[in-house]
Amino acid sequence: MSNIILGIDPGSIATGYGIIGQKGNSLVYVKCGVIRNKSEDAIEKRLFNIYNKLFEIIREFSPVYCAIEDVFHSKNPRSALLLGQVRGVCIVCAVNSGIKVFEYAPTKVKQAVTGYGRAEKEQVQLMVQRLLCLDKKHPKDASDALSIAICHALNSSFLDRIKMENIK
Amino acid sequence: MSNIILGIDPGSIATGYGIIGQKGNSLVYVKCGVIRNKSEDAIEKRLFNIYNKLFEIIREFSPVYCAIEDVFHSKNPRSALLLGQVRGVCIVCAVNSGIKVFEYAPTKVKQAVTGYGRAEKEQVQLMVQRLLCLDKKHPKDASDALSIAICHALNSSFLDRIKMENIK
Repeated sequence: MSNIILGIDPGSIATGYGIIGQKGNSLVYVKCGVIRNKSEDAIEKRLFNIYNKLFEIIREFSPVYCAIEDVFHSKNPRSALLLGQVRGVCIVCAVNSGIKVFEYAPTKVKQAVTGYGRAEKEQVQLMVQRLLCLDKKHPKDASDALSIAICHALNSSFLDRIKMENIK
Repeated sequence: MSNIILGIDPGSIATGYGIIGQKGNSLVYVKCGVIRNKSEDAIEKRLFNIYNKLFEIIREFSPVYCAIEDVFHSKNPRSALLLGQVRGVCIVCAVNSGIKVFEYAPTKVKQAVTGYGRAEKEQVQLMVQRLLCLDKKHPKDASDALSIAICHALNSSFLDRIKMENIK
């Protein structure tokens, strides 16, 4: 297994993570999950929890790349500020661990996984399952994190793109 | 010197920090400054720089409290997201160092330092200089960080409030 990628879907209540790797010319699923926080916890406690859980995950799987969604739009400045805090913590956790971080717009992620930049969430989830040969559905946040990791794999030069396109 | 407080005014280009302590019933100025970043640098690089500089500052001055402005409003979601990232990094850096973090609304900070929640920036800067007996003006971001630290001192029970009010 090489070129291990950590995809992150940040959120203050649920931060999804997805890890994939490369075996020959194929993408291989490694692990995914959700770092959960209680909504009644102070933001400091939530950020601390996210940083530490993510730090453990990075230590266990030693990814070489980290991919995270680049969000341009948000419902309102307050939720953007909250999301920004979580994003900042995820990014600095990866950079502190010596991992290079890449950001992808949501449309780019959807385009990479489904071939269509405005695909529905269910379609993205289905394609993640198909591309990584998963035998079960994973939680939405974990699946979204996997889609971001796949996006990075396809945007990097180390994968046989034609083979991936055939699967689609 | 006891009850050392680190005030932080986060920003992706300039993050101000201000350190004050308590000596008897008085506030004492310790240090202030600005962590600067180049606007052309990627956000990952900026966040990494802020985390590491702040980490060094915390190690050098061993604050027991960290105070940071709680921003509710922002010009737009994009700038809120950017500011949020920096806030998240500052908060997690403090929490990772075992420091308790307190958040104060801008109006509360102005109220604490000038007695008026909608005071002008210049008035805040002047009062910071006066309250801490500073013989020169410091950069705006550093001075703002000091005002946040002062706000925490006045909102905690360890200071003689009346004495502070007499100075004003």
